[in-house]
Amino acid sequence: MCQSNAYLLKDNREELILEDVAKILFDDKNQITLISLFGEEKKIKGELDKVDLLNHKIYIKSIDS
Amino acid sequence: MCQSNAYLLKDNREELILEDVAKILFDDKNQITLISLFGEEKKIKGELDKVDLLNHKIYIKSIDS
Repeated sequence: MCQSNAYLLKDNREELILEDVAKILFDDKNQITLISLFGEEKKIKGELDKVDLLNHKIYIKSIDS
Repeated sequence: MCQSNAYLLKDNREELILEDVAKILFDDKNQITLISLFGEEKKIKGELDKVDLLNHKIYIKSIDS
């Protein structure tokens, strides 16, 4: 299983956005679309900070604060 | 095994940059650092286009052309 969990980094906290992320798409500037293995989709205003495939974690920096 | 291969999208071609990518870091604007399972490191000027964890592919758009 290669799916990762996506976390939003905001105010020094990690907030779980979506589990079992299978795809990350970049629609336009600063818009990230996460799609889970089960078809759940979430759109986030932010920038990727780190993708750690070994530890199955995707970190996104919030940019709306 | 959750490592993916990273490809550069340039002139409608996919060019393999690095195999078995374990981490993707974003140092500053438009600078992407890929680190493989074996510690090999490559820095690329570009933007992430898509991360497909199911098919183990990371696509980076070149921005220097």
